Amino acid sequence: MSGNTIGKLFSVSTFGESHGVALGCVVDGCPPGIELNEAILQVDLDRRKPGQSKFTTQRREADEVRILSGVFEGKTTGTSIGMVIENTDQRSKDYGDIKHKFRPGHADYTYWQKYGIRDYRGGGRSSARETAMRVAAGTIAKQVLKQLGIEVRAYLSQLGPIALPLVAWDGVEENPFFCADPTKIEALEAYMVQLRRDGDSVGAKVTVVASGVEVGLGEPVFDRLDAELAHSLMSINAVKGVEIGAGFDCITQRGSEHRDEMTPGGFKSNHAGGVLGGISTGQDIVASIAMKPTSSITVSGETIDIEGNSTELITKGRHDPCVGIRAVPIAEAMMAITLLDHVLRHRAQNQGVSTITPKI
Amino acid sequence: MSGNTIGKLFSVSTFGESHGVALGCVVDGCPPGIELNEAILQVDLDRRKPGQSKFTTQRREADEVRILSGVFEGKTTGTSIGMVIENTDQRSKDYGDIKHKFRPGHADYTYWQKYGIRDYRGGGRSSARETAMRVAAGTIAKQVLKQLGIEVRAYLSQLGPIALPLVAWDGVEENPFFCADPTKIEALEAYMVQLRRDGDSVGAKVTVVASGVEVGLGEPVFDRLDAELAHSLMSINAVKGVEIGAGFDCITQRGSEHRDEMTPGGFKSNHAGGVLGGISTGQDIVASIAMKPTSSITVSGETIDIEGNSTELITKGRHDPCVGIRAVPIAEAMMAITLLDHVLRHRAQNQGVSTITPKI
Amino acid sequence: MSGNTIGKLFSVSTFGESHGVALGCVVDGCPPGIELNEAILQVDLDRRKPGQSKFTTQRREADEVRILSGVFEGKTTGTSIGMVIENTDQRSKDYGDIKHKFRPGHADYTYWQKYGIRDYRGGGRSSARETAMRVAAGTIAKQVLKQLGIEVRAYLSQLGPIALPLVAWDGVEENPFFCADPTKIEALEAYMVQLRRDGDSVGAKVTVVASGVEVGLGEPVFDRLDAELAHSLMSINAVKGVEIGAGFDCITQRGSEHRDEMTPGGFKSNHAGGVLGGISTGQDIVASIAMKPTSSITVSGETIDIEGNSTELITKGRHDPCVGIRAVPIAEAMMAITLLDHVLRHRAQNQGVSTITPKI
Amino acid sequence: MSGNTIGKLFSVSTFGESHGVALGCVVDGCPPGIELNEAILQVDLDRRKPGQSKFTTQRREADEVRILSGVFEGKTTGTSIGMVIENTDQRSKDYGDIKHKFRPGHADYTYWQKYGIRDYRGGGRSSARETAMRVAAGTIAKQVLKQLGIEVRAYLSQLGPIALPLVAWDGVEENPFFCADPTKIEALEAYMVQLRRDGDSVGAKVTVVASGVEVGLGEPVFDRLDAELAHSLMSINAVKGVEIGAGFDCITQRGSEHRDEMTPGGFKSNHAGGVLGGISTGQDIVASIAMKPTSSITVSGETIDIEGNSTELITKGRHDPCVGIRAVPIAEAMMAITLLDHVLRHRAQNQGVSTITPKI
Repeated sequence: MSGNTIGKLFSVSTFGESHGVALGCVVDGCPPGIELNEAILQVDLDRRKPGQSKFTTQRREADEVRILSGVFEGKTTGTSIGMVIENTDQRSKDYGDIKHKFRPGHADYTYWQKYGIRDYRGGGRSSARETAMRVAAGTIAKQVLKQLGIEVRAYLSQLGPIALPLVAWDGVEENPFFCADPTKIEALEAYMVQLRRDGDSVGAKVTVVASGVEVGLGEPVFDRLDAELAHSLMSINAVKGVEIGAGFDCITQRGSEHRDEMTPGGFKSNHAGGVLGGISTGQDIVASIAMKPTSSITVSGETIDIEGNSTELITKGRHDPCVGIRAVPIAEAMMAITLLDHVLRHRAQNQGVSTITPKI
Repeated sequence: MSGNTIGKLFSVSTFGESHGVALGCVVDGCPPGIELNEAILQVDLDRRKPGQSKFTTQRREADEVRILSGVFEGKTTGTSIGMVIENTDQRSKDYGDIKHKFRPGHADYTYWQKYGIRDYRGGGRSSARETAMRVAAGTIAKQVLKQLGIEVRAYLSQLGPIALPLVAWDGVEENPFFCADPTKIEALEAYMVQLRRDGDSVGAKVTVVASGVEVGLGEPVFDRLDAELAHSLMSINAVKGVEIGAGFDCITQRGSEHRDEMTPGGFKSNHAGGVLGGISTGQDIVASIAMKPTSSITVSGETIDIEGNSTELITKGRHDPCVGIRAVPIAEAMMAITLLDHVLRHRAQNQGVSTITPKI
Repeated sequence: MSGNTIGKLFSVSTFGESHGVALGCVVDGCPPGIELNEAILQVDLDRRKPGQSKFTTQRREADEVRILSGVFEGKTTGTSIGMVIENTDQRSKDYGDIKHKFRPGHADYTYWQKYGIRDYRGGGRSSARETAMRVAAGTIAKQVLKQLGIEVRAYLSQLGPIALPLVAWDGVEENPFFCADPTKIEALEAYMVQLRRDGDSVGAKVTVVASGVEVGLGEPVFDRLDAELAHSLMSINAVKGVEIGAGFDCITQRGSEHRDEMTPGGFKSNHAGGVLGGISTGQDIVASIAMKPTSSITVSGETIDIEGNSTELITKGRHDPCVGIRAVPIAEAMMAITLLDHVLRHRAQNQGVSTITPKI
Repeated sequence: MSGNTIGKLFSVSTFGESHGVALGCVVDGCPPGIELNEAILQVDLDRRKPGQSKFTTQRREADEVRILSGVFEGKTTGTSIGMVIENTDQRSKDYGDIKHKFRPGHADYTYWQKYGIRDYRGGGRSSARETAMRVAAGTIAKQVLKQLGIEVRAYLSQLGPIALPLVAWDGVEENPFFCADPTKIEALEAYMVQLRRDGDSVGAKVTVVASGVEVGLGEPVFDRLDAELAHSLMSINAVKGVEIGAGFDCITQRGSEHRDEMTPGGFKSNHAGGVLGGISTGQDIVASIAMKPTSSITVSGETIDIEGNSTELITKGRHDPCVGIRAVPIAEAMMAITLLDHVLRHRAQNQGVSTITPKI
């Protein structure tokens, strides 16, 4: 219980259900003096917002955030920042059928069993709508990281069978898929149109990269930077896998191939994904996540109702056929939150207290 | 900083370096009345112990654990349990060369940069020797889980190019690889002999399975069971990826294929790996980890010294050519620790306090 | 940093400044199935609300709370509960003078020095206005404790020189002082009228009592119940001392006098205040707090401005001449929050996991 | 549960029972590069050690600490520090009678009820013997604080009816009472001799002072410096009250008297005890604790046995007639631990991240 907070020094506590009154969060531990206002927050929120293209859910939410505290005359004060987004486009009738049935592949059954009660409207707390507040909190983290020269960006690196390599960051924001390879847009559109026709959904892969990261972030042995990134990224709805650097490819690698050799000018490769022994190396931090295909599809599925009887279910309503697309800004947010937390933790131990200074 | 503790209610704090005086830990939050003694702990410690076969490091450590507190007349008392393992086979001379050079692929450089000082003997705190205490703590968790009918087991599911499916749990302890497919032992031996000859190392995959798990474990939205398992498993040395259930395979799955349909008799499949919406479903929890090939090889590598000058390094000494093998009991331990922590967290919120009882 | 959360399993994270947009909080870890709505919350909020009598500040705030999440069809769902109170009676002009001057005895100077920036309007985050959200969160805790038969009540036990013994709980809500001795009301009124005339303020003592508490709450050695109550109660604005049971009186007691002897029918006395070895005994838990006189008085005081120059200051505006009065419901709230947190922590370790059951 | 750790960034986890194998702890988050060895630790341990004068318990424990990790070539490395003290003078026979009976005023009954099992030998985990590890950890904190110019000292400020003002720090270590007023030693000796003759015990007051503290430590609103000090100090065995600065005296103070006026040269008084709004002011931090008289006396007391039957008990064995005396170094240790934790937390938020710098 009490699992709605992430981060030890830069911490984010969220609340809110898909069809409840509002979503909100408390961001605690933000350094003072950081420029912040609603307009800054809105940029990323708009990137995640539903209904931005025909390839995502058609729910219409303005996702307008209000800052309720922690900011004075345009700057953070170091006190806790409260934020709220009101829900405006609830259509609970869309979800009448799932009041009594458990959608296969969803959290309906597990919430019911865990709590003995559930807000069934749109999945309640288990809905990915909750991630709006993560994005808002992540943008605050990005604002702080920016002045340290750290930038966190993500792109869709695979959609179903279509691999999407990083060709150029520039293009990512210029298509509805956060795809970094402009030559693939047409194929993606065609695939998605067919998917919608099939009433089905598909999985995806998202890759997040932090650049400008200083060496030294991460607190071994348990709060290694990679371990906390794994926690943070795996906590995003629908994520089933996390890898750092070479990830699962390293299973078949030899040590002589995997190890990143060093020269006075820096590392010769980055199979480690920017983390060695749980501590950042100063290289780009590269993490990828596997997103499962959403279970909200119009293909009928076998399930049970809350009495335990066998039944079938078609999930109507407004859903994303590939939740991986909108996961791009969410993945950025989670990495930014975890990175900033570790910047602060690293500062704590080594600044103005230690008698020695890191060398080289 | 302060990253040497894992677990919120069942918590484990470790200390100790590869060639220091001793390793130790504090296990806090263990329920009272659990049978515990050194002999019980020794079983898993011996499974992880170095030198058990010619395919692991030849360092000779008895790894004999002493319980210093928290147990009275053979049972846990509910107070904190202190444990210590003395180091007996330090050979610091083996490591003289790395005093001034950073081994590529190791944490030498990052520790140096983070702290400005490092215990270079055998990697100091960054050595996997530290995981001995995880195994001891994990066995305590297993003792508690056992009486709830929960069993945690792992096996080596891939070694380099050799896939190792789960054929039968029985065989896992009967070969030096923790391999669950007896037909593959010969191939593994041949591969390892050649690897040793090459002076190289290779990656591996380990799969951990918890069976008998009740529905309801996990605390969304951030302390989801899968997210905390990701944290816990990724915190093991050399792990570069974690997946739950279908993991990265779900990228190319359709929703109609991935979702696990339900019948009154239970789920029809387990692509979810036993976790939906961050909460256990009651099915087996299945997680896999990707282990990188160790960088301690006798193939010479390019690197820099602590003055920043270019140099070369061969890592002599006693090392595992595939650290994935001995990672099997470690992975079990980490899953057991995290599962027990979540059993306790789930108990807290729902037992004897809630006015409603979960149904079905 | 990141100090705006209290409680490990039942946790409360607050935000909001005296003259900001709104106050709010996230209550996480509340058991599911508890009856909850705004009307229930409003009762305690109204007890703390300013302007309820001529003896407290005349600021007019409705203090109307909105529940934004975590409640479905009148019952808690086990997910995080978001709450907000909009500020309606900000009069920032009242505070213009303190933009450049530090009020002696206030947190103006320390916030300025800590953060380098401060929201000076009404003290910003350091204002006791923040405690409104504590009261709302505390009422949720009380709702849960109620069904376990635990009741938390407080009264004003001293105001300046006037000692106010507990004569009868009944009368506490029938006078504007939360005084449990009806014969003292007249004296209190006279004292307060004179105090207002003097433009001065005075200290007070508040005593909180929890009855119906089960034996066994508290987690030694550091998270003793009394230690966490001390934390919780000392975190209330203006508190300078906390005592449990006999408190500072035990300095002059003999062991033969202080120890509470036991009989089959129970303890013969309660000098311990219901806590032995950091664990509840099953007796009433009794704690008292010392409240300092507020520094917001119209007697001129010597101070410095933000440039470091000497100056004088009179604090005008609308202030409580004795902040101890309105601290009564706040003290109840904090004890309720900490008690519930410990109920949950105790449940975690001992319910459905331990092989042994507490005896007697 | 899981209550054996204190501190968020500089954290201390302890284990060990009065008559168990050993006491130990893990100190995590210590900055690197701090000079540390066993001799440094032994100084404070010897101050707390039993049997140092005829006025404390005659149990003979060398209390020799071993550092097991976290220190390399005489300096801390930033990794976790393990320490152990072996118990050498257990005489379990002294405690045979309490196997079946609950000593009134002790934690025997509450541990039994909480856990259903207890190590009755000398009070097991509830014994103040556990505080030896606090002292060792506190000395590490003092080593770090020292280089920041912060010094933490304590003295016995009252023993039973004898008030003991701070006359001169110099004398504190020159008498067996940690008394700062040399004129009182004779009276103290006479009082203690009579107390021993009476077979009784008495309470005491200890005052702790931190000097050289920078302004800005403390994390409102819940992790205020004073609130965390209250937690930390109240967690010491036998403490029943904590006050900061004027403490309970402020109940009768007027605001015009209590507030500490400011001049360009600093504060004119220190009723606040060095903390305003939960943040350090830069003045001395002054806290006092009330210690109850131990219940281990030879005056017979009424109690029950573990079957619930009425019985009587005399506590023989080797006990302190005034536990307040040896609490002096313990109180120092706890304040040092909490202060260092807050130094690190303050560093985290404000160093190298914030765009603004505190003024004046």
